[in-house]
Amino acid sequence: MKRVTIHDVAKEAGVSVTTVSRVLNDRGYISTEMKEKVLKAIKELNYIPNEMARSFFSNQSKFIALIVPTTENPFFGELTFRIEKALAKFGYHLFICNSLNDPENEEKYLRLLNEKRVDGIIVGSHNVDISEYKNYENQIVSIERKLTENIPMIQSDDYNGGVLATRELISQGCSNILCVIGDKNVETPANDRSLGYISEMEKNNLKPRFIEIPFQIGYEEKYKIIKDTFQTKFNFDGVFAGDDVNAKLFMNVAKEMNYDIPEDIKIVGFDGTQTMRSLVPELSTVVQPIEQLANEAVKILLDLLQGKKVKKESTLPVELYLSRTTNRIKN
Amino acid sequence: MKRVTIHDVAKEAGVSVTTVSRVLNDRGYISTEMKEKVLKAIKELNYIPNEMARSFFSNQSKFIALIVPTTENPFFGELTFRIEKALAKFGYHLFICNSLNDPENEEKYLRLLNEKRVDGIIVGSHNVDISEYKNYENQIVSIERKLTENIPMIQSDDYNGGVLATRELISQGCSNILCVIGDKNVETPANDRSLGYISEMEKNNLKPRFIEIPFQIGYEEKYKIIKDTFQTKFNFDGVFAGDDVNAKLFMNVAKEMNYDIPEDIKIVGFDGTQTMRSLVPELSTVVQPIEQLANEAVKILLDLLQGKKVKKESTLPVELYLSRTTNRIKN
Repeated sequence: MKRVTIHDVAKEAGVSVTTVSRVLNDRGYISTEMKEKVLKAIKELNYIPNEMARSFFSNQSKFIALIVPTTENPFFGELTFRIEKALAKFGYHLFICNSLNDPENEEKYLRLLNEKRVDGIIVGSHNVDISEYKNYENQIVSIERKLTENIPMIQSDDYNGGVLATRELISQGCSNILCVIGDKNVETPANDRSLGYISEMEKNNLKPRFIEIPFQIGYEEKYKIIKDTFQTKFNFDGVFAGDDVNAKLFMNVAKEMNYDIPEDIKIVGFDGTQTMRSLVPELSTVVQPIEQLANEAVKILLDLLQGKKVKKESTLPVELYLSRTTNRIKN
Repeated sequence: MKRVTIHDVAKEAGVSVTTVSRVLNDRGYISTEMKEKVLKAIKELNYIPNEMARSFFSNQSKFIALIVPTTENPFFGELTFRIEKALAKFGYHLFICNSLNDPENEEKYLRLLNEKRVDGIIVGSHNVDISEYKNYENQIVSIERKLTENIPMIQSDDYNGGVLATRELISQGCSNILCVIGDKNVETPANDRSLGYISEMEKNNLKPRFIEIPFQIGYEEKYKIIKDTFQTKFNFDGVFAGDDVNAKLFMNVAKEMNYDIPEDIKIVGFDGTQTMRSLVPELSTVVQPIEQLANEAVKILLDLLQGKKVKKESTLPVELYLSRTTNRIKN
């Protein structure tokens, strides 16, 4: 049995090779009847054109999927941009999946992996039952999410970020420091931020205090939780806000309620995207190395796809950034 | 000549059907030698497994590409999120291409279209020579970008946005109003924003004045241009800032230089993303209907792919949003 070529298709359909080519490339005039004949022959012979064959025989689609909660969030918007840039250098294209509130979407992407339509996945979010990921351990890396024992994870030094932020607040005279945590039921390395906070508080004989603001709820809801925190239990002089969105919302509510920042309350965020630092220069924050996170995740995934041995955990250093106008926390 | 099946592959390679299936699905133990035999047979017979065949014979990949300058920008971050959601409803997956400073990337995506690896493209950016797009007029829609006469375009009512913003500034007593425009050499519907501004200024016998801030330069560069504008030619009392990033940077520089807002200068932005409106509540801006832009672009593209007749231009209404704390422009 020999390989099926465009000539076989032409012969089977009883048309010229040019006609088959036109149908394949959707170019030039072609009658519906002719087109149907050609498609029938293609189907019968199971013929595939070269570029599809290339991708299949090389066993590579050159497509990578990225699952993030939402590109609307400044951190994930920038991370997506950086990952796409990093992949493009190696000739890979990026799919994007905004998984927020939609675990089904995540499952769909795992199916694409199964069908070999994408080569690998970078996960920055997870709703799907972790056991689902077990079948694809050699094609997935995660950023700031622990999926399974074997899936490589790249993360910022969240713990140290929590330490640095809390230490700075204490050194500026705060003693009643509130720590914002995400959804308590979701285990993420971001939780390490609060562990760093706790450690530093206890070292200074201060009592850790928390408020919960789930990541996936809308801005208005977050605003309400923060407003409520001010109205019902205001006796804090410092806030380690977990991320920059919460930090800015705390600053807004404080201003609205006529608290003086930094006199009455000092606030430190987390993430430190270009956008937030440029547009909100009065924000003090723990800066994640977003570009390096992206580059490292891409490097590890491509190594993994080539069957190379890779590090199971990579932790990249963070940096405390104090607002531009002064060298102290001055929100 | 009959259709190539998995049985033919097994026969050609001299292995069992189960072995071929294992190679195809990368499951179970399989020796390198065996694997090579199978791959050789697959290649020789030009066999493709069902799921690839399905996608090819149905002539649909169910993949759509989106080309935007960068998801780092709040507007494009939110637009990407909305488009991905809209496509998911129809079972489509989204590719993302951050084209900023990289026209080559845009060309790569047009090649994917040619290879039938994506069904269509939504363009929110263009660097590529427009003639390249001419070959794909029935598979592309654009958002806020005029590509060719035949490619459908979905846009906000930029002109009216310019009118509304300028009218409000004038009604608040401004007479020396600066208008920020993007790169003068790039023709985009966003330019209509400045046409609306000009019309409203002239109607009131006021002299239009412009400063140019290219979209694609970094935040620091934009900041410098704005600072320079304050230092060398400060005699304006109002700014129509073209987008929210510029508006916020104008607010920041004004504050830094001890100008009082809104006493000394009144500022209106453009875009009105959820993120900017929530995090910068003192921002007054012209709100684009981002979710509708996304839904309309997806609807028109899918209609186009089904060969339906579609509108060549759709213009969606904008709304002037005055800052939350007062009902007047109060930056």
